[in-house]
Amino acid sequence: MSLSLGELAVRFGCELRGDPDARVDSIAPLATAHAGSVTFLANPRLRSELASTQATVVVLDAKSADAASGAVLIAANPHATFARIAALLYPRSVEPAGVHPSAVIAQDAQVDPSAHVGPFACIGPRTVVGARAIIGAHSIIEDGVTIEADVRLIGRVTVCHGVKIGARTLVRPGAVIGGAGFGFAKEGERLLPVPQVGSVIIGPDCEIGANTTIDRGAIEDTVLEEGVKLDNQIQIGHNCRIGAHTAMAACVGLSGSVTVGKRCMIGGMVGIVGHLSICDDVAVTGLTMVSHPITQPGVYSGGIPAESARTWRRLVARFKRLDSFAQRLAAVERATGTNTAATQGEDDD
Amino acid sequence: MSLSLGELAVRFGCELRGDPDARVDSIAPLATAHAGSVTFLANPRLRSELASTQATVVVLDAKSADAASGAVLIAANPHATFARIAALLYPRSVEPAGVHPSAVIAQDAQVDPSAHVGPFACIGPRTVVGARAIIGAHSIIEDGVTIEADVRLIGRVTVCHGVKIGARTLVRPGAVIGGAGFGFAKEGERLLPVPQVGSVIIGPDCEIGANTTIDRGAIEDTVLEEGVKLDNQIQIGHNCRIGAHTAMAACVGLSGSVTVGKRCMIGGMVGIVGHLSICDDVAVTGLTMVSHPITQPGVYSGGIPAESARTWRRLVARFKRLDSFAQRLAAVERATGTNTAATQGEDDD
Amino acid sequence: MSLSLGELAVRFGCELRGDPDARVDSIAPLATAHAGSVTFLANPRLRSELASTQATVVVLDAKSADAASGAVLIAANPHATFARIAALLYPRSVEPAGVHPSAVIAQDAQVDPSAHVGPFACIGPRTVVGARAIIGAHSIIEDGVTIEADVRLIGRVTVCHGVKIGARTLVRPGAVIGGAGFGFAKEGERLLPVPQVGSVIIGPDCEIGANTTIDRGAIEDTVLEEGVKLDNQIQIGHNCRIGAHTAMAACVGLSGSVTVGKRCMIGGMVGIVGHLSICDDVAVTGLTMVSHPITQPGVYSGGIPAESARTWRRLVARFKRLDSFAQRLAAVERATGTNTAATQGEDDD
Repeated sequence: MSLSLGELAVRFGCELRGDPDARVDSIAPLATAHAGSVTFLANPRLRSELASTQATVVVLDAKSADAASGAVLIAANPHATFARIAALLYPRSVEPAGVHPSAVIAQDAQVDPSAHVGPFACIGPRTVVGARAIIGAHSIIEDGVTIEADVRLIGRVTVCHGVKIGARTLVRPGAVIGGAGFGFAKEGERLLPVPQVGSVIIGPDCEIGANTTIDRGAIEDTVLEEGVKLDNQIQIGHNCRIGAHTAMAACVGLSGSVTVGKRCMIGGMVGIVGHLSICDDVAVTGLTMVSHPITQPGVYSGGIPAESARTWRRLVARFKRLDSFAQRLAAVERATGTNTAATQGEDDD
Repeated sequence: MSLSLGELAVRFGCELRGDPDARVDSIAPLATAHAGSVTFLANPRLRSELASTQATVVVLDAKSADAASGAVLIAANPHATFARIAALLYPRSVEPAGVHPSAVIAQDAQVDPSAHVGPFACIGPRTVVGARAIIGAHSIIEDGVTIEADVRLIGRVTVCHGVKIGARTLVRPGAVIGGAGFGFAKEGERLLPVPQVGSVIIGPDCEIGANTTIDRGAIEDTVLEEGVKLDNQIQIGHNCRIGAHTAMAACVGLSGSVTVGKRCMIGGMVGIVGHLSICDDVAVTGLTMVSHPITQPGVYSGGIPAESARTWRRLVARFKRLDSFAQRLAAVERATGTNTAATQGEDDD
Repeated sequence: MSLSLGELAVRFGCELRGDPDARVDSIAPLATAHAGSVTFLANPRLRSELASTQATVVVLDAKSADAASGAVLIAANPHATFARIAALLYPRSVEPAGVHPSAVIAQDAQVDPSAHVGPFACIGPRTVVGARAIIGAHSIIEDGVTIEADVRLIGRVTVCHGVKIGARTLVRPGAVIGGAGFGFAKEGERLLPVPQVGSVIIGPDCEIGANTTIDRGAIEDTVLEEGVKLDNQIQIGHNCRIGAHTAMAACVGLSGSVTVGKRCMIGGMVGIVGHLSICDDVAVTGLTMVSHPITQPGVYSGGIPAESARTWRRLVARFKRLDSFAQRLAAVERATGTNTAATQGEDDD
């Protein structure tokens, strides 16, 4: 696939500075781009790389345009425009409509004739598969599931009974959607499973990463609103609710009944304790434990950067003696009559 | 499925206050319950919600009964009784006995005629599948495996050679049981795999969550005693031993040769360092690193709650200077002749 | 399988002290070994167990040999020699050459006649499977994949389009190699997926654990050099590069564009922040957050060991007041005229 700069400028409403007949057929990073490739500049700190890039054209914003020596496409949002150009240059492979002869489809399942069902897929009773949906190889769709139009289950996806997946949502291999939540009643020393009778409702335009697991609700439903993007190996406990356009990086874990607002960005390996609410527009940096509600937009953190093991052991030893430090500091304050504002309200004994 | 309050009272030995002919057909939370639903009160702090609930009946203990305005079922263990009622109202779908024609069964595998084997399941040589066991779609059972009666592999479960799974144990999709442990011998700069010749032995009444992995032992076996409940995406290293009725929340990781006692509760994302023992009746809160043996029952923690990123950066900077703090405090103590009990035995230079 | 000590000595170039006709048929730990088993001593601290072991022979180094009462095989690298003996005693089951009739193979895929393709495997167009490779049951190999000779995909492995897997590499069930990386461009409140057009290149002699996920590069490739060993449930983000002979324990997470050097040892549940470089010969202990580049070989840590919940709560409260501590300490220093070297350069106001 090859496109001229003129076509790109027209299609994406960009100002082109350069030869409209020059053509691109690939994408590349700024530093290693070569003739025929399109690249982009989103981070002004990389502006110095503009002079030396070999790319045929750079997508950038108006403020950076003068720093470029070659052709540029000026866009209000260079990263998004670049993403759309890349999608044109690298079109997705199209899966043919129809059901592979090896698939096992329940008699009363409704599979749209324009949908694709791959080898060894299983589709249960009363399940509905919408137009142009892709049910990849080895997927298991249990009974009573609703798969809306243009959903793509890449392959090897498990969707348990009664789950609903909104239009255009993409699910990657190994994801398990709608497994029973982890709920038990103690009876003597035994743990008695509590039936999990809610479901999982996933909105349109979501992405669910590889080997991510989303548990069905205990009584009410687990909900992902539209545009939620979950990376790989995320665990969403029962009855969580995730707001629209929130993104979570890999290996995040949400306990049960967590509510996350809209447009949040949750870093990798973050853990969120059960029954908490996080408001809209919160960012949490990686490896943070969220154990209290967050009610103000902003950035939150909780990870301590690594040190050499020798330094770290000393720091941990000091940390473990903080109680003693506090007492000693209070004693010195008493001995010297020092009493700062910072001392007020401290409980150091 | 609908049941009368009278039936429930008799079947579960509860005292009923209310109309024995009233009927319920669903479960609901206290706050959002409606006519026809049964709910429960286990947490006395929610007692105030009793007055306003629309539930047809509330399962609760004797102490809370007087606070209710509607019908109640008085139970010694309301949560467990509620769980049993829920299991009656929402019976599990029954899988028919028999082997799906697409399944691949080794000639010398023994599958009980009352067992269910789903589409595309593979069962290896010398494997034994017990009465009423469910081998869900796409499961892979290697050779020499023992699956006892009433085991349920929901689907897409991998059970490697020689593993034993006890009666009534439930395994969710994507779980891998008996993969080789991670063991290498260093030889120059290369890592030479050490054959892992132990197996995995899982007791009765266990649950293994979706995409959880349990490695086979290096020489001896990895063991889960009866009633162990593992949530999703847990990793159990080779040669671990987990005591009866212990529960672990999602994303827990156990290194090799960890021993966990009976009736422990391990919170989400906890990591346990190899070769440690944890005694019976230990609770570990989420995101804790356990790197020393635990020999006393009780609750253990190790996670630091998130702060705003700005506050957190200051705290981390202070933490990284703890060594300097300690030296400065000692200097002040020397200068002022202050010497508290807390100073004894500190090594602050 | 049974072997004489004489055979072992000759085959592995060991000095044998003991009866060359004595035979072994199993491996065992030092403490629980029995007649007929071979064991090894790698850790000198266990030397005292030598006197009482019931093993038929112990593999050990020259320094420990005199402490043994029974037969010994003296090896320069006892652990590696033991691993090789174990591999002899427990030979891998051999999968027959040929394609299972249920497998779905694209017409223009090239599968070597000596390769094994298991039940329900799918192999896409233009994919090449090398000599003696094993494509286990339920594996999905998309189009344009290269699987070199003697690769073993144990079963249920997903390999996405264009991925290359080097000779003798082993991949365990549930692994997903080459799923799209997690890359989005913000456009208003929506997150627009950025096409991920790189691939994954895995060198020879690697191991990829169960349910591990390795994302394809955004533009360039994600790369594992030769001999990399990844345990279960690891997440490797797009464009990471992992050096030869590096090992990572379970549940490690690498954000995008991380570079890890050669011969590194990364402990369980370690998280590495995006775009960082770690040099060769680095060890990181478990549960550490690496958020800065590491440029010197050595051991790095960042986890704080658990305490009883009561103690921990006090320590966290102290930690959260470190800022106040610092101000109070500075005040006391001013009041007493104490000014140690440690105070220099501190910013305590």
